[in-house]
Amino acid sequence: VQESTVEHDAGDKGAFRHYMLKEIYEQPHAIRQTLAGRLENGELNLEALGDLSDIEQVQIIACGTSYHAAMTARYWIESLAQLPCNVEIASEFRYRRSVVRPRSLLVTISQSGETADTLAALRLAKEIGYQRTLTICNVPGSSLVRESDVALMTCAGVEVGVASTKAFTTQLVALLLLTAALGRGRGLDVHQQAALTDALQQLPDLIDKTLSMNADIQALAQRFAEKHHALFLGRGSQYPIAMEGALKLKEISYIHAEAYAAGELKHGPLALIDAEMPIIVVAPNNQLVEKLKSNIEEVRARGGELTIFADEAAGLTTSDNVTVLPVTHCDNLIAPIVYTLPLQLLSYHVAVIKGTDVDQPRNLAKSVTVE
Amino acid sequence: VQESTVEHDAGDKGAFRHYMLKEIYEQPHAIRQTLAGRLENGELNLEALGDLSDIEQVQIIACGTSYHAAMTARYWIESLAQLPCNVEIASEFRYRRSVVRPRSLLVTISQSGETADTLAALRLAKEIGYQRTLTICNVPGSSLVRESDVALMTCAGVEVGVASTKAFTTQLVALLLLTAALGRGRGLDVHQQAALTDALQQLPDLIDKTLSMNADIQALAQRFAEKHHALFLGRGSQYPIAMEGALKLKEISYIHAEAYAAGELKHGPLALIDAEMPIIVVAPNNQLVEKLKSNIEEVRARGGELTIFADEAAGLTTSDNVTVLPVTHCDNLIAPIVYTLPLQLLSYHVAVIKGTDVDQPRNLAKSVTVE
Repeated sequence: VQESTVEHDAGDKGAFRHYMLKEIYEQPHAIRQTLAGRLENGELNLEALGDLSDIEQVQIIACGTSYHAAMTARYWIESLAQLPCNVEIASEFRYRRSVVRPRSLLVTISQSGETADTLAALRLAKEIGYQRTLTICNVPGSSLVRESDVALMTCAGVEVGVASTKAFTTQLVALLLLTAALGRGRGLDVHQQAALTDALQQLPDLIDKTLSMNADIQALAQRFAEKHHALFLGRGSQYPIAMEGALKLKEISYIHAEAYAAGELKHGPLALIDAEMPIIVVAPNNQLVEKLKSNIEEVRARGGELTIFADEAAGLTTSDNVTVLPVTHCDNLIAPIVYTLPLQLLSYHVAVIKGTDVDQPRNLAKSVTVE
Repeated sequence: VQESTVEHDAGDKGAFRHYMLKEIYEQPHAIRQTLAGRLENGELNLEALGDLSDIEQVQIIACGTSYHAAMTARYWIESLAQLPCNVEIASEFRYRRSVVRPRSLLVTISQSGETADTLAALRLAKEIGYQRTLTICNVPGSSLVRESDVALMTCAGVEVGVASTKAFTTQLVALLLLTAALGRGRGLDVHQQAALTDALQQLPDLIDKTLSMNADIQALAQRFAEKHHALFLGRGSQYPIAMEGALKLKEISYIHAEAYAAGELKHGPLALIDAEMPIIVVAPNNQLVEKLKSNIEEVRARGGELTIFADEAAGLTTSDNVTVLPVTHCDNLIAPIVYTLPLQLLSYHVAVIKGTDVDQPRNLAKSVTVE
């Protein structure tokens, strides 16, 4: 078991009004710490993960925000490492009779390493025959770390805000590193590996740049503060990011936000769309942007107000009922991480306007250590 | 390709105010028709599905309501046939680079057989190497039927209401038949097969009995008509049923309903709970009912108003803020089908009170034949 040695620094909020905002701004540092020793001078050093050459499938188990990180990783692991990857909610996995996929790497994800359902799922998985376990975790010495073969630590430092921010983005970084390790000798060729390491190296600076959207997002937040609903749309690896954006808004601003894979819009949620239900879209400049454009038109034609976070090169422009916020251009690989930032900032500012207890939202605990 | 020869009878609404209600009441008949020739005198006759002995995994692809049927089937196929089963939204599957699981049965589900994303996904799946395809479909001669190796027809008759009802429950019946066929010689022992055939034989009469809840549900509907939100909770194979219940309410009453696996409640949605957000729970009398009881207490402690559809033997009783509607006792295997009924009736009566166009809700089409 390899553990992080990063000093924890929950400390005070410093110049920040809330821990959540402080933790959002700590993300470039947290990501640098998570990459430290694992990616240096363009070289990946992932020996600590052990020999993964006999792994034939990946099964990820998690809850809440960590489940969204897992869902994002599925897109990466299948497309880059070309390994089948399944993802399941821990509380579902542990209470059903599932089939053990042979030669699987069983991955758990949890900030605290003490999430009750995830821990119970890990124990069950070992009992029913999963033989290789790895945890992605932020707390050294936690139960998940102690009970897994390998721990890939996120080095986010202590996270105080109940709504997870830097723990989530560092989980995504860890999952990209795991994808690279799994991909070696499999789907990931030399060019792809170079592109991946390049993108990861640029990531902390890109996150820094993306934080400069803060003032624009703060200005935008007012229009959501009066709403009771919101719909988040994404496609592909941005679909789980839309889910995470909706969860943030739910958690701290008590707005009923829900995410949909954009292609499912016509299969139901389109009936809900009117001027009272703002729609937030994450639309990077990848091969799906044309599809998203047609989804956007569907919504607009029905009176829906759209806010779109889009690659500055995506060719989307502000017009009637459509506000486009340009996001720094980035490689598609890391786009899910970059686009998480504006959604975090949006939920933060909406909550501040609404006057909720941002760092300790009602009814929620930081770590769900009971069932 | 085996096709249904059932006569279609869209006809008129007869004594019913809406096609949707007519179609809800047609379910005992539609299920009998779907079982006809396939289950008779306690014997399954599933030869038409071909030799499935070499299948090692199942991959199901669908959209909307059919996707919920697929999600339910995953619980059945893994626990009874003991085959790994993956389920994916068609619009996601077709636009990502996924890994082909060897020796898979690729299953598509669509009422019309013309759902654009599902059809494109089937074509892509064949291109990338899936070799065995089966469709569960309600329309003979449709594109999915023509382009799949085997068609397992649902015999629901023409469904006119945009919100699918009898097509969904007959899809579930077809999926249980498929589970039985896949389970033979695998996980399904003689006793389980007998239990499954028994449960299926009782199903039409159980559905008939469950329809007698109509008056009580109509009386209950008033309390939802003024609400803007609703949360549906379920666990295990009832989680997709909660999803389908939420979708029905969305589609025809324009109430923003969302479903959660009950175990995820603490990971976010609990922050939303107050007197303005009614919670609907599907709680059959299986091993999960104790877990659900603790979820119910969490919600009640926070002022949420609960409506619980529970097995009459589950030991749940009406109390402050908790209304329990007893559902006829049934085998856990078929509980997802039985519990679908009260949720259909609930959304129907809420929509009628709200005065929406029940059979043709705004913005939605019966078959999504464009992307």
